[in-house]
Amino acid sequence: MVKVGIYGASGYTGQELLRLLLRHPVVELTVVTSRRYADTPVASLFPHFHGLTPLAFQNLTPEEMASLCEVVFLALPHGVSMEVVPSFLTLGKRVIDLSADFRLQDIDTFHKWYGKHLAPAYLTQAVYGLPELYREKIRECTLVANPGCYPTSAILALAPLITESNLIDSNSIIIDAKSGVSGAGREPKVSSLFCEVAEGFKAYNVGKHRHTPEIEQELSRLSGLPIKVTFTPHLLPVNRGILSTVYVTPKKELFSRNLQELYEDFYRGEKFVKVLDEGFFPNISAVRGTNFCHLSVTLEERSGRIIIFSAIDNLMKGAAGQAVQNMNIMLGLPEETGLNFIPAFP
Amino acid sequence: MVKVGIYGASGYTGQELLRLLLRHPVVELTVVTSRRYADTPVASLFPHFHGLTPLAFQNLTPEEMASLCEVVFLALPHGVSMEVVPSFLTLGKRVIDLSADFRLQDIDTFHKWYGKHLAPAYLTQAVYGLPELYREKIRECTLVANPGCYPTSAILALAPLITESNLIDSNSIIIDAKSGVSGAGREPKVSSLFCEVAEGFKAYNVGKHRHTPEIEQELSRLSGLPIKVTFTPHLLPVNRGILSTVYVTPKKELFSRNLQELYEDFYRGEKFVKVLDEGFFPNISAVRGTNFCHLSVTLEERSGRIIIFSAIDNLMKGAAGQAVQNMNIMLGLPEETGLNFIPAFP
Amino acid sequence: MVKVGIYGASGYTGQELLRLLLRHPVVELTVVTSRRYADTPVASLFPHFHGLTPLAFQNLTPEEMASLCEVVFLALPHGVSMEVVPSFLTLGKRVIDLSADFRLQDIDTFHKWYGKHLAPAYLTQAVYGLPELYREKIRECTLVANPGCYPTSAILALAPLITESNLIDSNSIIIDAKSGVSGAGREPKVSSLFCEVAEGFKAYNVGKHRHTPEIEQELSRLSGLPIKVTFTPHLLPVNRGILSTVYVTPKKELFSRNLQELYEDFYRGEKFVKVLDEGFFPNISAVRGTNFCHLSVTLEERSGRIIIFSAIDNLMKGAAGQAVQNMNIMLGLPEETGLNFIPAFP
Amino acid sequence: MVKVGIYGASGYTGQELLRLLLRHPVVELTVVTSRRYADTPVASLFPHFHGLTPLAFQNLTPEEMASLCEVVFLALPHGVSMEVVPSFLTLGKRVIDLSADFRLQDIDTFHKWYGKHLAPAYLTQAVYGLPELYREKIRECTLVANPGCYPTSAILALAPLITESNLIDSNSIIIDAKSGVSGAGREPKVSSLFCEVAEGFKAYNVGKHRHTPEIEQELSRLSGLPIKVTFTPHLLPVNRGILSTVYVTPKKELFSRNLQELYEDFYRGEKFVKVLDEGFFPNISAVRGTNFCHLSVTLEERSGRIIIFSAIDNLMKGAAGQAVQNMNIMLGLPEETGLNFIPAFP
Repeated sequence: MVKVGIYGASGYTGQELLRLLLRHPVVELTVVTSRRYADTPVASLFPHFHGLTPLAFQNLTPEEMASLCEVVFLALPHGVSMEVVPSFLTLGKRVIDLSADFRLQDIDTFHKWYGKHLAPAYLTQAVYGLPELYREKIRECTLVANPGCYPTSAILALAPLITESNLIDSNSIIIDAKSGVSGAGREPKVSSLFCEVAEGFKAYNVGKHRHTPEIEQELSRLSGLPIKVTFTPHLLPVNRGILSTVYVTPKKELFSRNLQELYEDFYRGEKFVKVLDEGFFPNISAVRGTNFCHLSVTLEERSGRIIIFSAIDNLMKGAAGQAVQNMNIMLGLPEETGLNFIPAFP
Repeated sequence: MVKVGIYGASGYTGQELLRLLLRHPVVELTVVTSRRYADTPVASLFPHFHGLTPLAFQNLTPEEMASLCEVVFLALPHGVSMEVVPSFLTLGKRVIDLSADFRLQDIDTFHKWYGKHLAPAYLTQAVYGLPELYREKIRECTLVANPGCYPTSAILALAPLITESNLIDSNSIIIDAKSGVSGAGREPKVSSLFCEVAEGFKAYNVGKHRHTPEIEQELSRLSGLPIKVTFTPHLLPVNRGILSTVYVTPKKELFSRNLQELYEDFYRGEKFVKVLDEGFFPNISAVRGTNFCHLSVTLEERSGRIIIFSAIDNLMKGAAGQAVQNMNIMLGLPEETGLNFIPAFP
Repeated sequence: MVKVGIYGASGYTGQELLRLLLRHPVVELTVVTSRRYADTPVASLFPHFHGLTPLAFQNLTPEEMASLCEVVFLALPHGVSMEVVPSFLTLGKRVIDLSADFRLQDIDTFHKWYGKHLAPAYLTQAVYGLPELYREKIRECTLVANPGCYPTSAILALAPLITESNLIDSNSIIIDAKSGVSGAGREPKVSSLFCEVAEGFKAYNVGKHRHTPEIEQELSRLSGLPIKVTFTPHLLPVNRGILSTVYVTPKKELFSRNLQELYEDFYRGEKFVKVLDEGFFPNISAVRGTNFCHLSVTLEERSGRIIIFSAIDNLMKGAAGQAVQNMNIMLGLPEETGLNFIPAFP
Repeated sequence: MVKVGIYGASGYTGQELLRLLLRHPVVELTVVTSRRYADTPVASLFPHFHGLTPLAFQNLTPEEMASLCEVVFLALPHGVSMEVVPSFLTLGKRVIDLSADFRLQDIDTFHKWYGKHLAPAYLTQAVYGLPELYREKIRECTLVANPGCYPTSAILALAPLITESNLIDSNSIIIDAKSGVSGAGREPKVSSLFCEVAEGFKAYNVGKHRHTPEIEQELSRLSGLPIKVTFTPHLLPVNRGILSTVYVTPKKELFSRNLQELYEDFYRGEKFVKVLDEGFFPNISAVRGTNFCHLSVTLEERSGRIIIFSAIDNLMKGAAGQAVQNMNIMLGLPEETGLNFIPAFP
């Protein structure tokens, strides 16, 4: 059993990692930390763990934690991960960072969207942890920058069209995305209150959501062209789930191709990315609690536009599930190890 | 007091008309019909009317109903309105039809999207009941084709940009729309069950929703150009509300203009269409239960695209509220008569 | 027009008062205060008021506010009302206090459940503002202690049985109550987050909710006996509404009576309390946004127990609506003035 | 691998069994039937199974099905199971019936609540499948009558108090129960529509829910006394979950006992029934998707009453999960085999 730990485990993502790692057949979760909830049993803060783990949150330095595990998951706020990553790496640990701190590889872009970086030297060392694109690099690396939830959904939707050159107009990409509330975290704030969200729906951070440069970085890398996207996030009155509706304008070359086959071929053999049959459209409820991404792609004949739908669970494929998938790759395990859930519906 | 009646009052739209007309200060609701619920008191089918009306549903022919009222609201399924509209008009009644039967003025388009029409002679007589665009015609007419919920939301979002020529690329319009479940009506079907919708989100009728030609007809009329749009409806897990997120590509001429002013000028003096201040984005919960449409417009500088958000209550500005607004115009009343609600939040 | 003001208007109850008072035909809302949101336009904090009021929140002392209005609504946290009530009364204003500060008339009981009282001299001067029981006293008083939401629901459910002696076993009362989340206010706290509440349901404050002594005070007063109740509040994943399910054991005398008639007689002529016909059971969605209380009463023959169901909107009959009803009484207006809503369903 | 099948797998309970059995490590799900959806792939009707099973629904007679599996789960409507149970048993299959057809052992009670029984001879042969009470009998039997969802929740709440004589007043039991909507099944009906349920809450079938005699049968059996209960079901706007709030009056003997210990002792060693620590109260969201039952018990000192809270997932411990637990017992497996989930929160 490989010993693993979660640094900052008291948020929604942290406790989702707990759910996954406690049932993982190959690893042992030895330690979970939280400054605020030090010495509180996990099951006191999160009663759904009652009787399922004796672990309590601990307040530990990276050095103290490093002695207790080999792989470290960082489920910390943005800006905090960068304070501890160097310590863990220096101590020889493998790190999967679920914050945004090491996702952007260009330091200027980081400055513009997030501010000062405390450990810029590690930016290029980090591997962007989207296994369907980078699994070879993930296998070898010591620092995974686990992708954001919206970027995971958007990049998986677009990768088949953008990887091959000349299929679409690279200036035409519009990502209209809708996310459940757990994406906003467990910090108490008015905008996340039940009464502010239930029976409501709205866009937020229009034109300035921090996931924008992350999406653009990856699409640019795949296409070899500098890509700008329109990305509009909305807040859905559900606990979990992201649906991205992506609009692109095809180029001529695409019309000789079968879109459905293009997507099925691209993701053939993938355990977690599923291209739905024609006539079916992804629903976030059909991937809930799992690491699946459901995709569908349609050429709308009237307008000549392509529409791609992409559904994930933001806490799973959009965070904790993908982190465990990355860990599996790093440990040489089958990717679906410990992630073999069927969605619970309804 | 003007006597009015609702033909087909047992659905969500019908009962919303009841709510409005029972409190309208100038009209008297004298009759409500329903074949299925004949002789059932309204308050037995809809307990929220307990003690608020002695009316019971009646099973009446148009001729029988015509003797009881001067203005008739038709809250019937598509295809049924066209069977009774000629009778009501022949008997000298003024008709506000909430179905789609008389919204499309081109008979071929109607055939293609809805099938055979039983009263095509009346198509050109009908006035499309969007008061902000057609109030003069509505005042004079005897048959109002009350707009669909999605079209109301989309047309109000686009009218300021499309009415004036050369502001936007008319081929660039994408309408990503999200609607609450009451839009699907009160007929029992699996897809409207609580468990199928709650904690879910998905697109439906992609590329083939019947509101598409209605949107295109009106945008084409406003612009003078034949316009095709990409329109993608999604199902939101809320009772009421539509948010449309509309993407367009501006033309050069637009850059010399102040978008916010353009919208504020266009809707200045309108009682029900409100352009939010910059930095605010419409939320369906802020218009719930009212006839308001909240709009915001943004130029996204990174991509050079314009994004317009439009929020309405699909049962109000998207159906019953707009129908009463139309009736007010037909009767020469101030448009807000009986519609003077403040949204109940949360 | 009578000038009225809201002291502490930035919470859910405060903004609900705004909704009601802005449309009230006899009063003019001249001032709303908030320390935290001083100088913020109401419509900036609550966009559903966009275009509906030019008011901004002000930071005023009671003395400053008193010069601007004749009737003052206090929508303050518990413990804060008692700091300002003496000032408003000394200045000759009529006060409707929506906090709990003046609801309990016994100072020892207050100490036990709430702690120290800063203005105990006013406790006996305050009238418990449940119009169906105390409208004569409300008419004459200067300080109304507006009832709690749970107590309103429970007392209206039990009054017909407890007012008349010997109908029920006074030790048998169990109130199983379920409330929507707006009852917890707009303060950001983890327990009110969307993700903590949606798809969940639980009891809270079991055996120690502060509304318990308020319910007992009023039931004891009505019955002339010292009454203890079992009161169990639960948190419902809805915005608004309280349903109380009340169980009592009847005494012999009751069996000669017709329960349905007993309730209908007791509330005959009441504008806001409606006894549903036999076979119908209250639903919180049927009173939403209104000042109605829906009641039903059943003798369960198998167990010989009586079950009463009581549904209100916690922000309306449970708070702001009842406060306006009380103001109407104080001003000699018909009680339904400005409260004449039909519920918006769904 | 033991071959198992689901007869009638197209409802919410049936598809939940699919979720469990497809991942069960010891059994092989070989066949699922549905008359209505014959030849439809499971993943076409329920897209959350996309890529997870090649099974399609078949329309089979019991005889045809019996050749394909050894254990049969019946997820049929009440009244239909009794038509096929004799065939399966005659063919030597072991049957777990999730309908109510074989839960009541007294034929007169069955007649009164459900009507005519077509296979009364099998009533006494059936074992009531509540493992915590009857695991020895379940191990030996060929026909398990899988308990109803409400009864499971209520009986587990009361068993520790009722099994031992003289602890409570057996006439004092009140069960105020609240269930999610999936309990109403996937049949389209108005009362299960999203818009009828969301933002609503009400009681239903007051005094006449068919689970009443089932609860009474089991409580009477445990206590040795004929027990009548007051059972009031309510409809919660959530997908899954039942919370029962149970009120009982203790007898003197109880006051010498520690309630918490009594419950902990009673359920010590149970894998699925968890007594929460004092001060914690069950939340349906903490057992969602799992076979757990969370219990808490409190003596309310003011009234001298005991309150027990019991939370289960109605589709799991209330149906499919318990059915698999019963199968595990019948097959001699550890009870938690294939049921080892941690709840996914939020």
